[in-house]
Amino acid sequence: MTATAADRYQALLSSRAKRGARPNQSPHGPRFGFASGKPDPGSFPYAELAEAMSDVMETDGANSLTYGQLYGFDGLRELIAHKYEIFEGLKLSKDNIIIANGSGDAIGQVIQTFVDDGDPVICEAPTFSATIQSFRRVAADLIGIEMDDQGLRTDLVEQKLKELRAAGRQCKLIYTIDNFQNPGGPTLSEPRRRHLIALAKEYNVPICEDDAYGELRFEGEFVPSLLSMDDSGLVCRTGTLSKILGAGFRLGWVAASPELLQYFAGFNFGGGVSPLTSRIATTYLSKHIEPHVADLVNIYREKRDAMLDELQKGIGDTDAEWSKPEGGFFIWVKLPTGCDTKKLTELAAASSIGFNMGTAFMPNGGGERHIRLAYSFESPSELREGTRLLCQAIRGAMG
Amino acid sequence: MTATAADRYQALLSSRAKRGARPNQSPHGPRFGFASGKPDPGSFPYAELAEAMSDVMETDGANSLTYGQLYGFDGLRELIAHKYEIFEGLKLSKDNIIIANGSGDAIGQVIQTFVDDGDPVICEAPTFSATIQSFRRVAADLIGIEMDDQGLRTDLVEQKLKELRAAGRQCKLIYTIDNFQNPGGPTLSEPRRRHLIALAKEYNVPICEDDAYGELRFEGEFVPSLLSMDDSGLVCRTGTLSKILGAGFRLGWVAASPELLQYFAGFNFGGGVSPLTSRIATTYLSKHIEPHVADLVNIYREKRDAMLDELQKGIGDTDAEWSKPEGGFFIWVKLPTGCDTKKLTELAAASSIGFNMGTAFMPNGGGERHIRLAYSFESPSELREGTRLLCQAIRGAMG
Repeated sequence: MTATAADRYQALLSSRAKRGARPNQSPHGPRFGFASGKPDPGSFPYAELAEAMSDVMETDGANSLTYGQLYGFDGLRELIAHKYEIFEGLKLSKDNIIIANGSGDAIGQVIQTFVDDGDPVICEAPTFSATIQSFRRVAADLIGIEMDDQGLRTDLVEQKLKELRAAGRQCKLIYTIDNFQNPGGPTLSEPRRRHLIALAKEYNVPICEDDAYGELRFEGEFVPSLLSMDDSGLVCRTGTLSKILGAGFRLGWVAASPELLQYFAGFNFGGGVSPLTSRIATTYLSKHIEPHVADLVNIYREKRDAMLDELQKGIGDTDAEWSKPEGGFFIWVKLPTGCDTKKLTELAAASSIGFNMGTAFMPNGGGERHIRLAYSFESPSELREGTRLLCQAIRGAMG
Repeated sequence: MTATAADRYQALLSSRAKRGARPNQSPHGPRFGFASGKPDPGSFPYAELAEAMSDVMETDGANSLTYGQLYGFDGLRELIAHKYEIFEGLKLSKDNIIIANGSGDAIGQVIQTFVDDGDPVICEAPTFSATIQSFRRVAADLIGIEMDDQGLRTDLVEQKLKELRAAGRQCKLIYTIDNFQNPGGPTLSEPRRRHLIALAKEYNVPICEDDAYGELRFEGEFVPSLLSMDDSGLVCRTGTLSKILGAGFRLGWVAASPELLQYFAGFNFGGGVSPLTSRIATTYLSKHIEPHVADLVNIYREKRDAMLDELQKGIGDTDAEWSKPEGGFFIWVKLPTGCDTKKLTELAAASSIGFNMGTAFMPNGGGERHIRLAYSFESPSELREGTRLLCQAIRGAMG
C-alpha cells in the first residue's frame, strides 16, 4: 500500500469508522493477567465439551453445521429461560430471548436499536469500558452518574432526567450493571431498582440491564432483577455464557419483551447466530449447569479472597481503598495519596503485571486515581504473588 | 406488554432500527428447499470434526474457550492466506486477513466502514438480497447496473461514476460478486476486471469483491481476482467457510490492505471472533482442504446438472431462459411469457417448493419475471423431483 492510498481511506471512511480504528491486541499477555475479565481456564470442562461435540455431530450434525435461526438456536433460548427460573425463580419463555455473539454484541444491539447520534444516554460512572466504546461509536451523549454503596444514585438520575426533559431532550437509554457493578463493585439495592423502574416508566426510557455476573454471587442476598420488576416492557437484560461456561463460545443474549427482539435482530449479521457452539453449550449445560455454577462460585470466591487478602497485607496501612464485591470478577482500587500512576505503570510493567487504568471506565473523564483488577483469570497462588508485586509497585510509585 | 409499550418503542427507535425489523424465520422449511444457498449436508465431515474438537480441547483448550483476538485466530488467518495461494497462486499473509462471523458480517463491516446515510454505492442488478438489506440499513443510495454474459457492464459503471462526479457526489463503494454472480450467474471477465480496477483508481472508490463461491468452479477457466490485480489498496475481498466447510462455523473474512483491517474491526462486537470454531475449522482444513473442496466441486456439479436437466425437460419448450453457472449454488430463471407469479407462488407452495422471487434481488425495483433457485441443499434425486414439480407449477401458472 502506498501513502496515497492511506490518504484515500481517510477521505472515504464513514462517520462511524472515523470514531475509532481498532488495532489488534497482542496475543501475549503479561505474566500476571489482572486486566480483562477472562474466565478461569482451570474451570473449563474440556473432556465433557469434546463429548458434547461428538453427541451434537451424531444427533444434530446437519443443523449445527448449516445456517442457524436468526434469533438463535431454540434449545439454547429455552435453556436460558430455564436458567432464569432455576437461579432466580424468574419465569420467561424462549420468546423473550434472542441469542447474540457474547454480551458485547447483545449490548451493542440494544444500543443500536435505541440510540442515534447525539442522543442522551445515562450510565454509571465508572462503567464498563467496552460499552463506553460502543456508545462512542454511535456518538451518544453519554452522561455518567455516580454511585454509592447502594449502587447507582437514582436520585441523581431523576434530577438529570428532569433537566433533560426541561431542555426538550429525550434520554434514549439508561445503561446499568446492577450486580457487582463493573468496575465499581456495588450491587444496586432493591429500593433503588424500584425507583429506577418508576423513572423509566415516567420518562419513557428503556433500560439496558447488563448482568454478566449475576450467577456468580459469593455471599450476601440475591436482589431481584430489574427485568423481573418491570411491567412496562422497557427493560432489556443482557447476559452471557462467557463467565459461567467459556468466552470462546461467543454466546450472549438479550432477555426482553418479545416485541423488541425483531429490532435487535436487525443488527445481527446474517446467517444465524452460532448454530454449532449453541448446540455444544446446550448439550453440556442442560445436564451440568447447577453443579458447574456452584463450583465456579467457590473458585471465584477463593480468588477474590486471595486478592483482597494480599491487598490488605500490601497496602492496608495506606489510605488506599478498594471494593469488596459480593460476586463477579473485579476489584476497584482507589490508589493511595501520592501514588504516581505513570510511575506505577512502569513499575508494574517491569514486574509483568497487567491491569486497567481507571480512566478507561469513566464516561466523562476522571478516574486517574483508580485501577481495576480482575481476579478471575490467574490461579490463587499467582494472584497472591502478582498482588504482592503490584502492592510493591504501588508503594514504589508513592515515593 | 401493553399496546402503550409498543407505541413507546416506535418513538424510541434509532433511525437504523426503524429501517427494518427482522422477524424470526420458521425452522421448518418446505420439502424442496431451493430458496437459500445452504451447503450440502451430506458433505459435512461429522466424525472428523468431532475428532478435531477433541484435538483442540486437548492441545489448545484454554485458548479456544476464552476470549479471542480481535482480528481472529492467527492460525485461521494463516490458513486462509495459504488457501489463496494453493487455489489461486495469490500470495497474501495473515496481516491481510481479518476474521468475521461469516461473509455477511464481513460485507457488513466493509459497508459500515465506508458508507454513510445517502452515500452513492454501485452494485450489480440483480445482486445478493442480504447485501441489499445491509445497504438499506445504512441508507445507502444504491445504484444497480446491469450485467451481460461477461458480468457487470463496466462501461455503464464508468458512465455512472462520471455522472456522479459531475453532480459533485463521491461514490463510496462498488459491490461486485464477480464469480458465478449471485443470483445472475455470469463471471466477470478479465478485461472487465481490469477496467473496474482502473475505474476504482480513477474515481477513488473502494471495491467490495464478494467471493463466497470461487473455489467451487465446475468448469471454464479461472479468472484472477480483483484483489490480485489491484495495486491501490482499494479492493476488499470477502470470503467464507460456509460453502466449503459448513455455515454453522460462522466464519468469514475480509482480505484487504493491512491498513484497512483496523476500521473493519471497529464494527466487530468485542470478545474476539469465534475462537472455538476457528480452531476446529483450522484443525480440520489444514489437513483436508484440497481433497474436501475437490469432493465438493463434484457434488455441486452433479446437483447443478440435475436441476438444469430437469428445467430443460420441464420448460425447455417455452421462452423461459436460465443461467448455466460455471460454479456456485444458484440458477437464475426468467419465467416464460404469461407466467403469473402470484399463481406460481400458490402452486409451488402447494407442492411444498421453496424458492426466492427475483424482486428480492433488485436494488432499484423490477425482477418480477425472475426467480432464483438454489441447487446446493437437496440431494440430486430430490432436486430432480422438486424441479419437475416446479416446472409443472410454472406451466400451471401460464394457463
